[in-house]
Amino acid sequence: MPKNDALGALMAHARETTALEQVAGRLGWDQETVMPRGAAGQRGEELAAIEGVLHARRTDPRLADWLAAAEPPDDAGRAQVAKIRRSHDRARRVPARLAQEIARVTSLSQGLWAEARAQDDVAAFLPTLAEVVRLKREEGEALAGGGCPYDALLDEYEPGMTGAEAAAMFDSLRPRLVALRGRILGATRRPAALSGSFGTEAQLRLSRELATVFGYDFSRGRIDIAVHPFSSGSGNDVRITTRVAESDPFNCFYSTIHEVGHAAYEQNVDPGYLLTPIGGGVSMGVHESQSRIYENQLGRSQAFTGWLLARMREGFGEFGIATPEAFFAAVNRVQPGFIRTEADEVHYNLHIMLRFDLERALIRGELEVGDLDAAWNARFLADFGVAVDRPRHGMLQDVHWSVGLFGYFPTYALGNLYAGCLHSALRADLPDLDARMAAGDVSAATGWLREKVQRHGGLYAPREVIGRACGFEPAAGPLLDYLEAKFGAIYGL
Amino acid sequence: MPKNDALGALMAHARETTALEQVAGRLGWDQETVMPRGAAGQRGEELAAIEGVLHARRTDPRLADWLAAAEPPDDAGRAQVAKIRRSHDRARRVPARLAQEIARVTSLSQGLWAEARAQDDVAAFLPTLAEVVRLKREEGEALAGGGCPYDALLDEYEPGMTGAEAAAMFDSLRPRLVALRGRILGATRRPAALSGSFGTEAQLRLSRELATVFGYDFSRGRIDIAVHPFSSGSGNDVRITTRVAESDPFNCFYSTIHEVGHAAYEQNVDPGYLLTPIGGGVSMGVHESQSRIYENQLGRSQAFTGWLLARMREGFGEFGIATPEAFFAAVNRVQPGFIRTEADEVHYNLHIMLRFDLERALIRGELEVGDLDAAWNARFLADFGVAVDRPRHGMLQDVHWSVGLFGYFPTYALGNLYAGCLHSALRADLPDLDARMAAGDVSAATGWLREKVQRHGGLYAPREVIGRACGFEPAAGPLLDYLEAKFGAIYGL
Repeated sequence: MPKNDALGALMAHARETTALEQVAGRLGWDQETVMPRGAAGQRGEELAAIEGVLHARRTDPRLADWLAAAEPPDDAGRAQVAKIRRSHDRARRVPARLAQEIARVTSLSQGLWAEARAQDDVAAFLPTLAEVVRLKREEGEALAGGGCPYDALLDEYEPGMTGAEAAAMFDSLRPRLVALRGRILGATRRPAALSGSFGTEAQLRLSRELATVFGYDFSRGRIDIAVHPFSSGSGNDVRITTRVAESDPFNCFYSTIHEVGHAAYEQNVDPGYLLTPIGGGVSMGVHESQSRIYENQLGRSQAFTGWLLARMREGFGEFGIATPEAFFAAVNRVQPGFIRTEADEVHYNLHIMLRFDLERALIRGELEVGDLDAAWNARFLADFGVAVDRPRHGMLQDVHWSVGLFGYFPTYALGNLYAGCLHSALRADLPDLDARMAAGDVSAATGWLREKVQRHGGLYAPREVIGRACGFEPAAGPLLDYLEAKFGAIYGL
Repeated sequence: MPKNDALGALMAHARETTALEQVAGRLGWDQETVMPRGAAGQRGEELAAIEGVLHARRTDPRLADWLAAAEPPDDAGRAQVAKIRRSHDRARRVPARLAQEIARVTSLSQGLWAEARAQDDVAAFLPTLAEVVRLKREEGEALAGGGCPYDALLDEYEPGMTGAEAAAMFDSLRPRLVALRGRILGATRRPAALSGSFGTEAQLRLSRELATVFGYDFSRGRIDIAVHPFSSGSGNDVRITTRVAESDPFNCFYSTIHEVGHAAYEQNVDPGYLLTPIGGGVSMGVHESQSRIYENQLGRSQAFTGWLLARMREGFGEFGIATPEAFFAAVNRVQPGFIRTEADEVHYNLHIMLRFDLERALIRGELEVGDLDAAWNARFLADFGVAVDRPRHGMLQDVHWSVGLFGYFPTYALGNLYAGCLHSALRADLPDLDARMAAGDVSAATGWLREKVQRHGGLYAPREVIGRACGFEPAAGPLLDYLEAKFGAIYGL
């Protein structure tokens, strides 16, 4: 076959596969936002069917011929072909039966997890979780071909990263984080927390305004409510969800800003890559770097919280926090808590380390599901100095394992590390950023990220896109420097 | 291959295909209710991709072998195999390229139609419509294999019915309908119309109550708002939409009851048929018989409107209609109007006849798209005695042609005819129905329909399921008798 025909056939095939991946993703969005509860069983079959279709396409034997013959003319073409090759190689290792079984089981187990969490009933969830772990171990082993099954799963979310590299990253973060945490908990300053009740409608209005401020394009997206906020879709249909608790408006606002970070990455990829293998975010770590920098380095900055305080006063009246400094401290209050998604920037990565060690042990067969609850609780007590009081505050808190996302958690920490690097670099490029953010204008920063990171989609490898954007090799230092400076100031260390 | 293996393979394949059809259908629901407007182009590609998958499955060469070898042991199995054979035969006649092209073009043309309708701009819609007609003609010719392309399209929606049979049905309806219309318009009694403003929230509350009264299972469905109400999905995920205009609550209420009729048919099929070829409604005509009998023979009956009047007074206060008799007459007011979906029971089938003749001529190449507007307006004036004042009241009013639904309209009239038959039969079986409906209880009637029609899904052929339910051959007489009696009483004829 002529080389250009091979490339054309490859790209046409990939385009349809990408479109079908969008369809499958939207079924997930539907399930979490609008699906009638009685549809769960049927939905499992639907997801399994589309997963079967995707698996068949990714293992299509014609791909091998096209891949052998295709000669892409440029970097983008080479990146496309590399993505297709990777997807083909991985899919061929996983039997179709296993891929469909995982889709079916995880679709159902998500509902069972939600119910078990609501009931604080670990025992009710264990049989399902054991089934999921068994299937994901099997998948990891099939993918690894004799190598480490956990590495093979992690590679799905963070191409090129191994468990050993993740462990090294945590080693580079842990000592200074633990020391900072100790100094903060020993400090005499204790910032006041927000208190009072904040109406749902006003929260959602301000949440939409925040989405707009951070560049979310509503004409190509929408915001709904979900138990566990997420972003879904790529290109011209990128939807986010948020949640509302009347006692805690920061949860709503920062969930929204966080998901807008993810969504902006998908919305801002070069339109020429639409519905192609490089038309979305390149890895979960880079994805999380965008959500984290939007949420934390920008959204929780002293400059931006000053603007947010004024908007909250307009929306809710006075609420007992007198100064911008006190508000900034309340937004960034450090406190050991059970829940990862509510964790402050200092504790967050400690939550991830716990999950990383446990899930890696689960997949490698060094920990059994029946021992997970005890292992979680022991580790939590050791790291956080507090005993888990109920399973929904412990091993039942996260959706991830129920839907088979093993190897996903480390990408959150990697995203934090990358966000630290990007923040250091963009601050150097944008000396007047604080003055703009104090006026509610974050567009210089989001524009920098769009130009340096987001528009490239999957053109470069994950570490490469971050390194190119920053002008230096990604490392833990910038994040740790930022955290020590920010929380040192807040806590007077 | 052993016969049982062939049947097993056939059914496993069909089950996945049916699940994927549900996925494709839900994309349509999403597009009409929640999709961001900027996603239209991408959605076209997604729909084309899944249509390509479905087409490939329906034309899978293994089906021919399995179909040859399968020996189903019972009626249900034979019905399953017959459905699969039919789908395979039809799909093989349509090239994959054409099927995907139709999916892509109709996904986009729907948005263009909506815009053209809003702007009353026929010219803006004509190029797209011409493209759709060209593709559907091509599909009809491919399906017909030398026969009539319109018959081949109609057969998609009403298996076994031909254009000639539809024409004969209209001939059997038209004289008595036209005569009845003439007597009503010449009558001295003129029922008052509803006037005033009816709050959106209260309408939607009562609309949900009506859905429950008519047996809609919210645990396996949901109600949203759409421009053009519809029902979508099968089995355990059957969603409906309605619409709200503050000046016209009947529009909301009767749209809801109508769509609940469709949804109940899908929700009440024998659960043993879930996600199989006979797990949904057997034809559009039988489907429409359910929506029509729910809406008209039950929902607009004197007995039920008495209950509805009381509920409306509780929800909206007094609104200027003094007696149950006046309310019943207002609900059933006969008036020549432009809009099919707002037409009374006497005019409705005249709207269908107009569309049937025009669309049949379009597909047979006897009418060109450029002449459609003039042809519509001339025919409307002749049949309704009123000149169409703007395109949105004329040829731009319906979504159907924009999405390629040629051959669909006659099934509405057939549904009316079947509803007349079913109503005659269920009244004979349920002598105390009016007393129950006057108390807001329609369950005897909906239960009768569930048992006699809905639970069978695709087990019997369309005419057969109606004939079995009624105990007589379907014909126009019962509908015409019902209309003459009902409107004779209201108008004192």
